[in-house]
Amino acid sequence: MTKALILMAKGVEEMEAVICADVLRRASVDTLLLGLEGEASVEGSRGIILGVDQAFRGDETADLVVLPGGGEGAKHLAEDERVLSLLRRFEQEGAWIAAICAAPIALVAAGVGKGKSMTSHPSVRETVESFAGNYVEEAVAIDDHLVTGRGPGAAFDFALDLVGLCVGPQKAGEVRAPMMFG
Amino acid sequence: MTKALILMAKGVEEMEAVICADVLRRASVDTLLLGLEGEASVEGSRGIILGVDQAFRGDETADLVVLPGGGEGAKHLAEDERVLSLLRRFEQEGAWIAAICAAPIALVAAGVGKGKSMTSHPSVRETVESFAGNYVEEAVAIDDHLVTGRGPGAAFDFALDLVGLCVGPQKAGEVRAPMMFG
Repeated sequence: MTKALILMAKGVEEMEAVICADVLRRASVDTLLLGLEGEASVEGSRGIILGVDQAFRGDETADLVVLPGGGEGAKHLAEDERVLSLLRRFEQEGAWIAAICAAPIALVAAGVGKGKSMTSHPSVRETVESFAGNYVEEAVAIDDHLVTGRGPGAAFDFALDLVGLCVGPQKAGEVRAPMMFG
Repeated sequence: MTKALILMAKGVEEMEAVICADVLRRASVDTLLLGLEGEASVEGSRGIILGVDQAFRGDETADLVVLPGGGEGAKHLAEDERVLSLLRRFEQEGAWIAAICAAPIALVAAGVGKGKSMTSHPSVRETVESFAGNYVEEAVAIDDHLVTGRGPGAAFDFALDLVGLCVGPQKAGEVRAPMMFG
């Protein structure tokens, strides 16, 4: 069974975190929400309280790690040595690494994905562009095992692409259909 | 200031609840998440714990009430006399009433919106179609002060339409832009 970690920091963009968790669980991915502030729930960027499944330690293993955005949340991710260390380890192990919205700044802080095609929210474009090999203005950028997305409006595509990559395109289609897109 | 209530029952579809709350708050709508189980947080359809701002009583006033879906969550809404009573009162007062995914079954249970254009998730189509005057297979159906949506994949359009209707199209555009759609 595919296993995913979603890193939850104070100020996380609620829609990005919840869409990723919900869509991955619809695809039967074993998905854990890990709290950077321990076992306590986190308050998101728009004041919504989100529960976490476990406290984040930094030594977790999984097939995929997802970094949701939110300006403040992404800053907390990028400043947390445990996060940066996990990202470097996942890159070495060839695991999937995904970051959306402002969260690619944590990849830059970790030095993960240098020289790869990446996107991000325009608010952090400068930081990401100077690090990325090729900054693209697309909803989702996929380069090898690195997946980046632009913002909440790209979150469904981002999450479904993760299902397609980590589980398979057939499962992504099965999950997509009952969600009633356009 | 526009005021909105979002009714949160156990089994709520997390993406629908969070997208509505987040988008309405981005539009500076005073948005309260009201818990049907009191002040406790609710567990959504995919196991995500969502905090609530206040316990739901049933005598609240607002410009807009939003009913998120989720099969089990919608059933709880439709079986709660306080919810049905509030829906009837809001209809009489000419306030906005919005329901997405499976939640239109609560409108049917309340007898609210009879004869109007409505949509819903296909899983509850039979119930809604036999009640609605005109069942439409569209992402969002707007008829007078009643707004219905099909599912999580329609949730952004649904929430932005609510901003457009309750606050104004200019605000909806301002909120939409930085979310980075397509």
